Amino acid sequence: MLVVMKAQATPEQINAVCEHIEKLGFRPHPMPGAQRTAVGITGNQGQIDQGNLEELSGVAEVIRVTKPYKLVSRDVKEEDTVISFPGTNATIGGRDLAIVAGPCSIESREQAFAVAEQIAAAGAQFFRGGAYKPRTSPYMFQGLGEQALIIMAEVRDRFGLRIVTEAMDTENLDLVADYADVIQIGARNMQNYTLLKAVGRKRQPVLLKRGMSATLDELLMAAEYIMSEGNYQVILCERGVRTFIDHTRNTLDLSIVPAVHRLSHLPILVDPSHGTGKRNKVVPLARAAVAVGADGLMVEVHDQPDKALSDGAQSIYPEQFVQMMDEITQIAPVVHRNVP
Amino acid sequence: MLVVMKAQATPEQINAVCEHIEKLGFRPHPMPGAQRTAVGITGNQGQIDQGNLEELSGVAEVIRVTKPYKLVSRDVKEEDTVISFPGTNATIGGRDLAIVAGPCSIESREQAFAVAEQIAAAGAQFFRGGAYKPRTSPYMFQGLGEQALIIMAEVRDRFGLRIVTEAMDTENLDLVADYADVIQIGARNMQNYTLLKAVGRKRQPVLLKRGMSATLDELLMAAEYIMSEGNYQVILCERGVRTFIDHTRNTLDLSIVPAVHRLSHLPILVDPSHGTGKRNKVVPLARAAVAVGADGLMVEVHDQPDKALSDGAQSIYPEQFVQMMDEITQIAPVVHRNVP
Amino acid sequence: MLVVMKAQATPEQINAVCEHIEKLGFRPHPMPGAQRTAVGITGNQGQIDQGNLEELSGVAEVIRVTKPYKLVSRDVKEEDTVISFPGTNATIGGRDLAIVAGPCSIESREQAFAVAEQIAAAGAQFFRGGAYKPRTSPYMFQGLGEQALIIMAEVRDRFGLRIVTEAMDTENLDLVADYADVIQIGARNMQNYTLLKAVGRKRQPVLLKRGMSATLDELLMAAEYIMSEGNYQVILCERGVRTFIDHTRNTLDLSIVPAVHRLSHLPILVDPSHGTGKRNKVVPLARAAVAVGADGLMVEVHDQPDKALSDGAQSIYPEQFVQMMDEITQIAPVVHRNVP
Amino acid sequence: MLVVMKAQATPEQINAVCEHIEKLGFRPHPMPGAQRTAVGITGNQGQIDQGNLEELSGVAEVIRVTKPYKLVSRDVKEEDTVISFPGTNATIGGRDLAIVAGPCSIESREQAFAVAEQIAAAGAQFFRGGAYKPRTSPYMFQGLGEQALIIMAEVRDRFGLRIVTEAMDTENLDLVADYADVIQIGARNMQNYTLLKAVGRKRQPVLLKRGMSATLDELLMAAEYIMSEGNYQVILCERGVRTFIDHTRNTLDLSIVPAVHRLSHLPILVDPSHGTGKRNKVVPLARAAVAVGADGLMVEVHDQPDKALSDGAQSIYPEQFVQMMDEITQIAPVVHRNVP
Repeated sequence: MLVVMKAQATPEQINAVCEHIEKLGFRPHPMPGAQRTAVGITGNQGQIDQGNLEELSGVAEVIRVTKPYKLVSRDVKEEDTVISFPGTNATIGGRDLAIVAGPCSIESREQAFAVAEQIAAAGAQFFRGGAYKPRTSPYMFQGLGEQALIIMAEVRDRFGLRIVTEAMDTENLDLVADYADVIQIGARNMQNYTLLKAVGRKRQPVLLKRGMSATLDELLMAAEYIMSEGNYQVILCERGVRTFIDHTRNTLDLSIVPAVHRLSHLPILVDPSHGTGKRNKVVPLARAAVAVGADGLMVEVHDQPDKALSDGAQSIYPEQFVQMMDEITQIAPVVHRNVP
Repeated sequence: MLVVMKAQATPEQINAVCEHIEKLGFRPHPMPGAQRTAVGITGNQGQIDQGNLEELSGVAEVIRVTKPYKLVSRDVKEEDTVISFPGTNATIGGRDLAIVAGPCSIESREQAFAVAEQIAAAGAQFFRGGAYKPRTSPYMFQGLGEQALIIMAEVRDRFGLRIVTEAMDTENLDLVADYADVIQIGARNMQNYTLLKAVGRKRQPVLLKRGMSATLDELLMAAEYIMSEGNYQVILCERGVRTFIDHTRNTLDLSIVPAVHRLSHLPILVDPSHGTGKRNKVVPLARAAVAVGADGLMVEVHDQPDKALSDGAQSIYPEQFVQMMDEITQIAPVVHRNVP
Repeated sequence: MLVVMKAQATPEQINAVCEHIEKLGFRPHPMPGAQRTAVGITGNQGQIDQGNLEELSGVAEVIRVTKPYKLVSRDVKEEDTVISFPGTNATIGGRDLAIVAGPCSIESREQAFAVAEQIAAAGAQFFRGGAYKPRTSPYMFQGLGEQALIIMAEVRDRFGLRIVTEAMDTENLDLVADYADVIQIGARNMQNYTLLKAVGRKRQPVLLKRGMSATLDELLMAAEYIMSEGNYQVILCERGVRTFIDHTRNTLDLSIVPAVHRLSHLPILVDPSHGTGKRNKVVPLARAAVAVGADGLMVEVHDQPDKALSDGAQSIYPEQFVQMMDEITQIAPVVHRNVP
Repeated sequence: MLVVMKAQATPEQINAVCEHIEKLGFRPHPMPGAQRTAVGITGNQGQIDQGNLEELSGVAEVIRVTKPYKLVSRDVKEEDTVISFPGTNATIGGRDLAIVAGPCSIESREQAFAVAEQIAAAGAQFFRGGAYKPRTSPYMFQGLGEQALIIMAEVRDRFGLRIVTEAMDTENLDLVADYADVIQIGARNMQNYTLLKAVGRKRQPVLLKRGMSATLDELLMAAEYIMSEGNYQVILCERGVRTFIDHTRNTLDLSIVPAVHRLSHLPILVDPSHGTGKRNKVVPLARAAVAVGADGLMVEVHDQPDKALSDGAQSIYPEQFVQMMDEITQIAPVVHRNVP
């Protein structure tokens, strides 16, 4: 259910609608738009009576939303969601492409700084790095933990980059949230609903990676879990899915970008590093991602990929990153985008 | 690394080996076998020196295990793992097939008792029921929580059935562990490594469901996560994977049963309910699962499937369950099994 | 469109209906059933007028068939299709399971006879062997051609086995049809519509293998192509599909067996050799195929699999075939079948 | 096996090498390069003796090619294959992008001319149109046959467009070859080896579409079948593969473009119409295909897609085609390409 307010509705009227919804035992989600505010209603205790809501002052109409995803949907919010980062010019979802780059894992202060310096110089606004790593084997390097978070905070201070890093579980979420500008939820956790709800109660933007075999609907429903808890700053990320194809580690599904843009107001990035798993395919697919209309890129960059503790084979060299930035800068205007 | 003890090694000698391993900063995993005990060694801080270990008294030989999974492997433990339930005759992994049945979700005491009575009468030893349900949408029925656990404890008391129920996260794990005989880890959480480690520190058997697009190696590695924390009672469960096939909800991969049995000593059940998603295919695939050599079955049974709050379309009627039990009882001897 | 004749309709009345349909520019397909005959109507030149047909004498009713497959459907023919082989007791689709066995390729008279002797002794009624082999590489062994067909004719004379062999194209179809009792259409040719139509004009039974990524609907439509040309003796065969799974060469989809039986009157065999690609998994999956309700099996048997010119890794030894026959003989009665 | 000739080798020396190879019972494939000619050797009757070949005059070295594909490989021919069309400036595989456009099926002279006029005006050099259509159902529109070929010949005369059309079988291949500039082999026939060999004996360029579930290796091997018969003008085409993804009809695998370019000298086009199956996704994916480095595009354009006899839902309007051409013209220079 969606309450569309009149264009001239006052903040008091919007508040009154929200309070009325809460009194009925549901949860209101006010979504300000360019022309008017809409109030999404969620809650799983049955039907709400439409009649009374329509009588409240300032209400234009009440619409039944039949899709399983509601807050995620363009029906509820027509304008694109643009996420901004106070104190910086960086945005995700707006005209400027968001470029997230960095090593798979933070391995040392030296490594992090070496990579950060080069990607910042080449134009990235976001630094990615793993502190907690979900690894297939319990015997593989699992990340430096808080030590890595501290290093990334220093990277932010030194290079002005916003930090994107993964929270693996509700146990380390608070700590990650203390350091990160954007909290990443990894592909393996896309349907870890407890973690989705917990991150939905945080106030940082969330980068939600598509699961290995998630359909478009499942990806949107995972975002809905986060939003239903009140955190509306969700960034989706395509990172390849699992198919029979064996010339890449995963199969990058670029068609999901226009598919998401049709159904949802949320931005979507593309990660060609995980999406291909092969260094020589990262830059071509990064170009393709921008050309298809993605809101930005997430790429793994390492100054010494052959010595990387994880994902070396898919990390590009800093000089390849420079080339990539140059190429996408030329492509961006075709899709009415800008590389800042 | 694996330390194989001599057949006549004493408990003291085994202890001494374990202590030596701990002093080196690694973790010992003693695995008693029919002939001799082996001690698996895990830890991710690098190589261990083989020489000294071989000199300890009672040690027959030290073997380097090159597979990524170790404790899971038949190299470490040749005999099949058989899990028993004190105070009952029920086992999983032995000659008797383990039959787990019950509704998808516990909806009420009446529903649970109605189903439990019928499946117990038909020969099931385990009752399954969801208290906490991972649902694709945040607005769907999420389970009755502790109330459902209490109902299941009553089912155990009344019908003598062992209880299998899912822990969705580390938050509800302790509570689930207080009530459950077997803790289930769902398909969506197969690579929720934090949860795997947490359940690895519990002392109940764990039923680990294969993820939607998990390979055999990934399934075994997930089990390895649990075992590396000291819980060796792991039961695998095939429940269908995601493919292009559209005549069933998932594609049941029965070939994984002999594949697991070759590589691992762990038992594996088959869930034809999730594996097909269609009531009319559950019994045929249950027969096939027994014929292929599965250690047991996990099936959804509901007395009124059309009114089920979840998974109604794939739940069979109690009378179909009776038919299934009758048919698999005839097939079991062909694979040297028994329906108790 | 389907014309259902009255139970007491005479052959003359059925003929009159067929002639009437032909006069309208369509094609009639009389399908005799246990109770009554139905006449399917195909042709792609638009709609047929229902009224006149209903007025013809002997007609009970005229039914619009809305499924894309018509002649394949149980709507058109309710009873299972049973294919018999004059001069033998062998059937496919009836109570007796049909067992097709033999080497992937015919390599020599000695090899063919050695295998044939053993499978005949163990109870197979059909001998399979490749004369023309569709190989991924143009530089691999492509089969002995007519020489192989001649050897198979000798196998038939000597051991009384019916011959199943593949026609790769319309060029070799006539020659194959001269020798074969059942003409096989391989997985790669499942949508080679020209070949399907050509074999539809032959009068031998056709064994149609499911394509690598064919859906159930596409498999049934491929059978419909054959039947629409007048050859109603079609046998379907599940042989594994392509998925992300890497512990077997293909993924055997046993759920298609009950799915076919619901929608179609045609028999369906299962080929666990191609379906797994691994010798150690053939017998377990063969047992499962019988348990799920398949109408028979198609397995590759070789007396010296390590020296086979093709598919050695998935060919079982003759002694494994004997064991398989023994095991399925025990399982068959559970599904109301018989191993002759 | 590959014979690399010296840079200064004469045509007579090359001929002598070829004749020597033929005398040995193998087939020579001379491949002229920018610096020197290489002669590929194929034939499946066993090993060739390397020593004598190296002694022939003009021979630089003899290299053993271990990959299963030989003539397709960059090992045999380092330079990109560029296919030209005498009497036109059109090329496929060179600096100019090749744009193939037109309706799925030729439905009438009016329709073909209406579409051709608009795509020619917008810059396409190739006109595609189906005369023989492989359809899933035998009851669907199967194409106008020769009538369509005649219409396309008129399109060529009138608009100067080169004609690309599919040969479905060896029966209609000769007729198709009489009219077509490029003979298309459809996805369903990618492993119809008889047809591949037959088209390998034609002298027109062949457009080979990737099969529904073909791996990269299988695609290259299919091209090898064509080349092994002496036709070296093969153009590959990615058109989407079958996966679990349900928001598009097929999953377009753009990563295969750089993968093909690494291994093979053959050009590869991308078909975003079949690759997505949805009109609103064709132009975004066309942009992405150019950005990833494809040698051209193949798109379905229809002036009245809602009335199309086949594939209407994925055909774009002529005005969308104009927009697409405009956008890819801007992207092409980034990948050192040109839209002519």
